[in-house]
Amino acid sequence: MSRDVSIPRPEFHRAVPENDDRERKICSHCGFVDYENPRIVVGVVATWEGRVLLCRRAIEPRKGHWTLPAGYMELGESTEQGAEREAWEEARARLRIDRLLAVYSLPHIGQVQMIYRAELLGDDVAPGPESEEVALFDFNDLPGELAFPSVAWALAHYQQTHHLNEFAPMGAPESASPLGGL
Amino acid sequence: MSRDVSIPRPEFHRAVPENDDRERKICSHCGFVDYENPRIVVGVVATWEGRVLLCRRAIEPRKGHWTLPAGYMELGESTEQGAEREAWEEARARLRIDRLLAVYSLPHIGQVQMIYRAELLGDDVAPGPESEEVALFDFNDLPGELAFPSVAWALAHYQQTHHLNEFAPMGAPESASPLGGL
Repeated sequence: MSRDVSIPRPEFHRAVPENDDRERKICSHCGFVDYENPRIVVGVVATWEGRVLLCRRAIEPRKGHWTLPAGYMELGESTEQGAEREAWEEARARLRIDRLLAVYSLPHIGQVQMIYRAELLGDDVAPGPESEEVALFDFNDLPGELAFPSVAWALAHYQQTHHLNEFAPMGAPESASPLGGL
Repeated sequence: MSRDVSIPRPEFHRAVPENDDRERKICSHCGFVDYENPRIVVGVVATWEGRVLLCRRAIEPRKGHWTLPAGYMELGESTEQGAEREAWEEARARLRIDRLLAVYSLPHIGQVQMIYRAELLGDDVAPGPESEEVALFDFNDLPGELAFPSVAWALAHYQQTHHLNEFAPMGAPESASPLGGL
């Protein structure tokens, strides 16, 4: 931003752009239309000899709680590549994606989470910048402090399906209402 | 945009925002960071008595060519609800979503297409504003002028799996390279 030290911050109002049929966020300064679409979160339930990889969050929200390697998909990658990237960034984990375990539509937070089943290529994992700690857990000894409901869903869905090769991806529980939060 | 008749158009440069690790589009006027994430396209292969619903596009790109009811997922809906909405908007079709047929990651155009298998609730369909014509086709008599490669993929993947209840969603063919286009 070299133009001016007194650059205004964006200031959005809502209006229906030309050739559209619903209100969008439009910047009152520059006219930019911020089309807000749901964002894709890609992640993995990755195992090594029956134990599952979890990361203790070093950042908010839910700092200090355990989560699966997962994050926003970026441009220029497939969903599988995004899941592999997140596993590397958060846990320095190398893995082989197996198949799509779950698709969780979460309209109340504008997310679609796509969680893959994966096999780690080794147990040499280490915390990346967004993790305080990473570890492999036995499914009988999972930590209590899970960061988000979808982490618990994915761990349960993995256990329900880990012996199957052909199955439809699992969805969010019916009880995951708009008030259920993440 | 009531502020000024001489409002500048957005003018973006690329830079790495604070606490980020990659270049983003930043508006030189107002500092707005346009996080560009892949967008989700939701659609359906919807059938009635073995025939499949297709729409002839009334808009560019590929005006006049046949496509599946599909479009960008909006905020506030699930992937299934988005697919149902598109079927209504483009073909005035009511349907029951059955299951996830395919997930096509298309990094070269920043899209993830999620195509559902669905059963029409009746054959009373009609063109919406973005369709010139809608029709039910026998799979042995599909139109030649399909709008996009992924339409052909989804029709083929439907035919390969329509008798199955449990299967992993199909993916884009390996040959769908960054140069393959849509």
